[in-house]
Amino acid sequence: MYEGAVQELIDELGRLPGVGPKSAQRIAFHILEADPEDMKRLATSITTVKERVQFCEICGNVTEEATCSICRDTRRDPSVICVVEESKDVIAVERTRSFKGRYHVLGGSINPIAGIGPEQLRIRELMTRLSDEQIQEIIIATDPNLEGEATATYLGRLLQSIGVTVSRLASGLPVGGDLEYADEVTLGRAFEGRRSVSS
Amino acid sequence: MYEGAVQELIDELGRLPGVGPKSAQRIAFHILEADPEDMKRLATSITTVKERVQFCEICGNVTEEATCSICRDTRRDPSVICVVEESKDVIAVERTRSFKGRYHVLGGSINPIAGIGPEQLRIRELMTRLSDEQIQEIIIATDPNLEGEATATYLGRLLQSIGVTVSRLASGLPVGGDLEYADEVTLGRAFEGRRSVSS
Repeated sequence: MYEGAVQELIDELGRLPGVGPKSAQRIAFHILEADPEDMKRLATSITTVKERVQFCEICGNVTEEATCSICRDTRRDPSVICVVEESKDVIAVERTRSFKGRYHVLGGSINPIAGIGPEQLRIRELMTRLSDEQIQEIIIATDPNLEGEATATYLGRLLQSIGVTVSRLASGLPVGGDLEYADEVTLGRAFEGRRSVSS
Repeated sequence: MYEGAVQELIDELGRLPGVGPKSAQRIAFHILEADPEDMKRLATSITTVKERVQFCEICGNVTEEATCSICRDTRRDPSVICVVEESKDVIAVERTRSFKGRYHVLGGSINPIAGIGPEQLRIRELMTRLSDEQIQEIIIATDPNLEGEATATYLGRLLQSIGVTVSRLASGLPVGGDLEYADEVTLGRAFEGRRSVSS
């Protein structure tokens, strides 16, 4: 055990995700030895984020204003909504440059073990958008894992009756991957979703 | 890329040791979603450490006062000094509960590639202690790697003429380890340092 402030810092750092006791100690000593100005900037950026960053009133994405830059962007197609689990998924889809619509961030996925049901997610807000905005298509882009699939299935059923086109991102072989190393579920999905190559 | 404050936080976190871009993003989103009070405490503990923690005037260990708790402790044997590379090594030795003397923290090890020579380490301070204090024994506990060995050899030569007992921690098989998996250098050292088992 270290003296007061050092141990406190190690404890605080150790509560961050993916930071074990050894990394917490290593980061704490880095902070101790680093330039005070740099460390002041780190501390300030933590408080700034908590003070300034909020969640977009419309889609739930992170933003420093009432609505996020994507919802404010009038060049984006307002008739298509891509539903994702987290803000980081928005960034991932944006990087593809192949989606020009808007987003809806659920804030997680259905996970009964962790006690997260549909009512803990921003599904009610999505339904409100569907009745208020002129939405024609919903693309469900939840993670291709158990929780993501459960969420997609739930949303699919919920949206069935509303008269919008609902789709789910394709599952299949990752580009640049190796058929030999693909797991059987992925390979099975790739077969199911096979596309015609006739020219 | 995220908007302003979030990206700034990710950048700052990414500069910490052992935190890659993915972990920085994960930690940043944890901070965003965490309780504001908890995050205020994290930010405060960073600034507190920088304001309050200093290095002990005598041994160079971390402390919140002019001298560290070990140097202040009159029950510790003032005639034996254990020389370590970093403050974290002090904690490691303290955990063994088998050393009752005092410490001297060098602040690193000799590493010509990184441009760290003996003059960058707290060796001058050690020599001053040797002339001022009643020291009879020096135990060199630098890391058992290339840089630590170089530092130990350098210190050994420097201290030779002073008339104090100088020793180096034993190298050998780690307790609970497996002979089969020991590397050849460690096993070689274990042979060299073998001890009589006669009762």
